[in-house]
Amino acid sequence: MTVDLNADLGESFGVWKLGDDDAMLDVVTSANVACGFHAGDSALLLRTCRAAAERDVRIGAQVSYLDLAGFGRRFIDADPEDLKADVIYQIGALQAIAQVAGSTVSYVKPHGALYNTIVTNHDQARAVAEAVHAVDPALPVLGLSGSVFFAEAQELGLRTVPEAFADRAYRSDGQLVSRRLHNAVLHDVEEIADRVSSMVTAGRVAAVDGSTIPITVESVCVHGDSPGAVQIAHAVRARLHSDGVEIKAFT
Amino acid sequence: MTVDLNADLGESFGVWKLGDDDAMLDVVTSANVACGFHAGDSALLLRTCRAAAERDVRIGAQVSYLDLAGFGRRFIDADPEDLKADVIYQIGALQAIAQVAGSTVSYVKPHGALYNTIVTNHDQARAVAEAVHAVDPALPVLGLSGSVFFAEAQELGLRTVPEAFADRAYRSDGQLVSRRLHNAVLHDVEEIADRVSSMVTAGRVAAVDGSTIPITVESVCVHGDSPGAVQIAHAVRARLHSDGVEIKAFT
Amino acid sequence: MTVDLNADLGESFGVWKLGDDDAMLDVVTSANVACGFHAGDSALLLRTCRAAAERDVRIGAQVSYLDLAGFGRRFIDADPEDLKADVIYQIGALQAIAQVAGSTVSYVKPHGALYNTIVTNHDQARAVAEAVHAVDPALPVLGLSGSVFFAEAQELGLRTVPEAFADRAYRSDGQLVSRRLHNAVLHDVEEIADRVSSMVTAGRVAAVDGSTIPITVESVCVHGDSPGAVQIAHAVRARLHSDGVEIKAFT
Amino acid sequence: MTVDLNADLGESFGVWKLGDDDAMLDVVTSANVACGFHAGDSALLLRTCRAAAERDVRIGAQVSYLDLAGFGRRFIDADPEDLKADVIYQIGALQAIAQVAGSTVSYVKPHGALYNTIVTNHDQARAVAEAVHAVDPALPVLGLSGSVFFAEAQELGLRTVPEAFADRAYRSDGQLVSRRLHNAVLHDVEEIADRVSSMVTAGRVAAVDGSTIPITVESVCVHGDSPGAVQIAHAVRARLHSDGVEIKAFT
Repeated sequence: MTVDLNADLGESFGVWKLGDDDAMLDVVTSANVACGFHAGDSALLLRTCRAAAERDVRIGAQVSYLDLAGFGRRFIDADPEDLKADVIYQIGALQAIAQVAGSTVSYVKPHGALYNTIVTNHDQARAVAEAVHAVDPALPVLGLSGSVFFAEAQELGLRTVPEAFADRAYRSDGQLVSRRLHNAVLHDVEEIADRVSSMVTAGRVAAVDGSTIPITVESVCVHGDSPGAVQIAHAVRARLHSDGVEIKAFT
Repeated sequence: MTVDLNADLGESFGVWKLGDDDAMLDVVTSANVACGFHAGDSALLLRTCRAAAERDVRIGAQVSYLDLAGFGRRFIDADPEDLKADVIYQIGALQAIAQVAGSTVSYVKPHGALYNTIVTNHDQARAVAEAVHAVDPALPVLGLSGSVFFAEAQELGLRTVPEAFADRAYRSDGQLVSRRLHNAVLHDVEEIADRVSSMVTAGRVAAVDGSTIPITVESVCVHGDSPGAVQIAHAVRARLHSDGVEIKAFT
Repeated sequence: MTVDLNADLGESFGVWKLGDDDAMLDVVTSANVACGFHAGDSALLLRTCRAAAERDVRIGAQVSYLDLAGFGRRFIDADPEDLKADVIYQIGALQAIAQVAGSTVSYVKPHGALYNTIVTNHDQARAVAEAVHAVDPALPVLGLSGSVFFAEAQELGLRTVPEAFADRAYRSDGQLVSRRLHNAVLHDVEEIADRVSSMVTAGRVAAVDGSTIPITVESVCVHGDSPGAVQIAHAVRARLHSDGVEIKAFT
Repeated sequence: MTVDLNADLGESFGVWKLGDDDAMLDVVTSANVACGFHAGDSALLLRTCRAAAERDVRIGAQVSYLDLAGFGRRFIDADPEDLKADVIYQIGALQAIAQVAGSTVSYVKPHGALYNTIVTNHDQARAVAEAVHAVDPALPVLGLSGSVFFAEAQELGLRTVPEAFADRAYRSDGQLVSRRLHNAVLHDVEEIADRVSSMVTAGRVAAVDGSTIPITVESVCVHGDSPGAVQIAHAVRARLHSDGVEIKAFT
């Protein structure tokens, strides 16, 4: 049994720092690197990709709405044609950065509000899937199992990689509890490790209403910017190791 | 005798239109397409690259300082490492856009204040040259003959393509008259055609002080956003044709 | 019988021009001047306010979501507290600009997607109303009669000024037809003049489904950026004059 | 003997945090609040102004070049008319924010590269001075004694308040050592307290070349974003107190 560990990285901007990218890169197997639309100035992205390349951590393009002020966490009612072009632009920008860093963009993961929107929004889901497909039909996408985004991506022949979130609460319909609600993010390290263990080895997790829901997991997302993020990532990795799960990049 | 004709295109932004890209694409052999830092939203860049690809017009990445409000026409004292990463980012973004449009980025041309700055500024010239080289050492650069940028680019082994400006006044040292001066831009169509003819066939042009200066030209830049730009471009093309000069992309 | 004529102005940005502000300022009595969030660099705003002040045209703050790429025409799911602060910021910025131009900000009008959103969205409507009230409880707001925005504004004691759009199609519920639909904007000058005449003198207008709907009008919005905008504005003004309606700023 | 203590505050942006504003507001008498051009989203500015108002700390507008990516620390060759309008815009925006917070903008202090540029650049110095004067001729400006900015401000009748920097190294000509040099910023708390004591009580300080230079000080700037900033601020305040210097806002 194997699973991938992914984290959002390269999310500082100019003078402002967010997360401990170096420490997270020592734990994860896949780095979702920002592309400048919600975070990540070019020079930081280059440093982040170099640090990932040095550790043989795979690089993914973490594409977003254009919204630095909102960190990509606000839905924007973007025209699908505009959104598609924005996603192509972002993947290309990170491809050049990754290449100069001695690596490559190996997958695409939508960020924040875009991620959540395309769980259900057909037009935007289609736009993102088409953008990835247009750049390279061999690029896998990370996302939520059962999402409209995955349906659209699969229709285009893209490889879809279902992921679970280590520190986020789930609704009984399998979607994430909104960040605007107080109970959206978990902080207890042991509870998080327990939940990840259950998700990966048993394929189920407790939802906020107490029910147990099925979940398909090829990759586990450990956040880079939560307080205690590095500690949580290490705990998740250790628990999976003791469960006999091998941590390696998805194929 | 052959010469390339290039123009700055893709310089609209969102609701704001600038220039007549379709008309210019019917005249030029090389399109310097903006990369989003001084102009060019992603969707427009995709349309522009598609229109260029349809006409077999070559696409170049017109890289710039990050400055929408100033249209890239203001010097920014950017750190060379930041500037290098910004240029890599822009080239990559346009590479993906161009590829989706069925074409490719065939060269790089700095825009506006960056263009003028690296005529003399070693650190920024080196940063731009290193960025192009890091993305692809086979990418030619367009610029001013005798510039520090060309010296740095040649030291890295990049192919340098010297260009002349059809509608800009020259100083006796071969540099362009600053856009802040009233006589920086020429408007008389016949005068412009005469000057281009002299630059291309005789290798010389009149400077603002009345002197005649030598000029090396493999490509002629016809601007896309001046009043009468399309008319000027046609006149330049017609004159060169009657001079027996073949208009074709540089190799 | 009197009515105000308002138009959106100051909507150029840097090198990009939109609309003919000088010509529109000769026709209207109230200028909705952009505040930099969807359009309007500071220097342009100062020139626009000076041109308005010279003609004794009143200045209103045309506040928007922060979205230059989308020209403020895309809904952004902004947090109400953030939106409130953004509106305060914009009004204040234009107040200083208007004061330096020898005038003052006399009212507030939301722009684009924000305008449409707060017809029905309580949280954002409340945020905008609170922002205006916090800056100056004596500032009137322009908007749609019957909107949630007006209800919230009135609850805070703000003066609400209902407006009609000269060149926009209406749904039978009194809301505007979305710009994404082909029939959202009218272009026939005579038809527009007829509709405005009916709206102002009879208080009713034809909706897209053929029904006639009541409409309350203290101000008529003539757009600044449509093709033929200046011609339309003159035609509307002439028709109202021949109807015996006096064109003057609302009080 | 009295002196003012000022610090740069409100310099976070969206999700990104910088400095400990609450702790600094407990130490200083004047808060240079960012205006959104180099840092400071509107909601943060409102919170910062409220926190300042609660403590009776005076609010100043910390105006900047428009450059979030560079945090306003890069010279931009802005046209003086554009710069003037940008400064007016920023002061106005913060005036509304401060007013809603129950306070007012009491002075203006340029930030970063703009601060340094107008020590010597006449056109930009004049533009900033004219902007302040146009908004309110009674607004004092903070800056460097002997600067061109102060000369221009005084010519317009503005009150100029000379400040010293607690943790910055000085050149023998009285200007600051560039941040790009390794020795630009001091970190030793005792050394900083000693220097401030000498500057305020004796009017002199040691320059980097070992010489002692005269310095005129009505306000001391303690940075908000250096490591140890709060500790430094407390040490400076304690030392001045033990020197018998009263810490109070300049008049």
